[in-house]
Amino acid sequence: MQEEKLILVTNDDSVSAKGIHALVEVAKKFGKVVVVAPDKPQSGMGHAITINHPLRLNKIDLFGEVESYACSGTPVDCVKLAIFEVLHRKPDLILSGVNHGENSSTNVLYSGTMSAAIEGAMEGISSIGFSLADYDADADFSATKHYASIIIQKIFNVDFPKNICLNVNVPKLNLDEIKGIKICKQAHAFWADRFDKRIDQFGRTYFWLTGEFSDVDKRPDTDLHALKNGYVSIVPTLYDLTAYQEIDNFKNWNL
Amino acid sequence: MQEEKLILVTNDDSVSAKGIHALVEVAKKFGKVVVVAPDKPQSGMGHAITINHPLRLNKIDLFGEVESYACSGTPVDCVKLAIFEVLHRKPDLILSGVNHGENSSTNVLYSGTMSAAIEGAMEGISSIGFSLADYDADADFSATKHYASIIIQKIFNVDFPKNICLNVNVPKLNLDEIKGIKICKQAHAFWADRFDKRIDQFGRTYFWLTGEFSDVDKRPDTDLHALKNGYVSIVPTLYDLTAYQEIDNFKNWNL
Repeated sequence: MQEEKLILVTNDDSVSAKGIHALVEVAKKFGKVVVVAPDKPQSGMGHAITINHPLRLNKIDLFGEVESYACSGTPVDCVKLAIFEVLHRKPDLILSGVNHGENSSTNVLYSGTMSAAIEGAMEGISSIGFSLADYDADADFSATKHYASIIIQKIFNVDFPKNICLNVNVPKLNLDEIKGIKICKQAHAFWADRFDKRIDQFGRTYFWLTGEFSDVDKRPDTDLHALKNGYVSIVPTLYDLTAYQEIDNFKNWNL
Repeated sequence: MQEEKLILVTNDDSVSAKGIHALVEVAKKFGKVVVVAPDKPQSGMGHAITINHPLRLNKIDLFGEVESYACSGTPVDCVKLAIFEVLHRKPDLILSGVNHGENSSTNVLYSGTMSAAIEGAMEGISSIGFSLADYDADADFSATKHYASIIIQKIFNVDFPKNICLNVNVPKLNLDEIKGIKICKQAHAFWADRFDKRIDQFGRTYFWLTGEFSDVDKRPDTDLHALKNGYVSIVPTLYDLTAYQEIDNFKNWNL
């Protein structure tokens, strides 16, 4: 008899976000689900961990019969706490998201959703981050749920490679408008940052990050290109940041 | 006449840390230095950015004649604010650190020091993160200063590759005990996490991250191996997390 799979679900938009509830609905079809997710929005937290103050973990009742906890920390804190203090073992799968908003291209570095998946890969656990290209709190996750099911089904039937996780992005389209799935490279595209600079009620200056995303990568096989053309993008994503192709070059510097 | 180089210095241990003062001393030999660094410790913040509330930037007088600012945000916020609101142009070099404590191996993902350098690489700026394997607030940075000088000197005399930055770690040794510099790969080594679980004065449970670092990577050319053997390690470090070698494998999944 096959043992039931244990699936951890987390995100960075908090336990209240519609996206994590959509993901839990899908996950339940594949095994026993436990939710450990932030108690407040943690977007843009990247791979941050909480080291200078303690964390809280509160049992909540927001996911029906699914055991679930709200954590005061970051998405990476949630993964660590889930493994070591909630599950007391490594789950068979970590699902992070569904994020309200795209995490394609270099956004992977800022994304708490993806950092939770990367932390899972570092623990040797099959891990997937899901994001929908729609920031709306009431976004329609039905197409994402369809594709999440397909991808999770596949994962349990293949050998998932070590040392990587998956970055899945879904375009803001109806299910029948999506053309399929493309395996992609992370686009080299960047935010053209700008700060909204204002004076507060006490006469002091403050700055608030804003800007436009600028796609300068003309390669046809990037995640951004796939999304723009109506495909779900999957980027196999590393935690090893070594620029292997540059090592010989630097050795020639004779430092 | 060669134009004076503009060098941005930041860190994650805050403007008060001894390490950033050591790095500014070195940087001053190579050009005009401007400091924009966190106003409080931001260790473990990874690539976090502040999007849900505004940032403050205060001119300070902690670095003698060097123009310097304390920022209420993360190290990545500091780099963004420095470029767009302080310098109003890209500097010729970004130096981050010197961190009090090692940022070798997978610590690069958690490290605010290294995320500042990675953000610099994303802006197309030559960027280096420096860390000393000594957490002491009063650590001896003299060997680090020696090697930082050598590396910065080299950078201004070669074509620095696009899309990468450097992760430099210095062992806790006297200068005459250090054997030289090794160009390395990021070790695949991980924290064996543990949480210190206690009950607070109100009877509620809290968790505090702790653990031991466990080196399971037996390759002889990793940063951890170099440091253990008395070398300064340099890992050329990417912001492109694509697992290129896995793309064909995933295409064969026929999703």
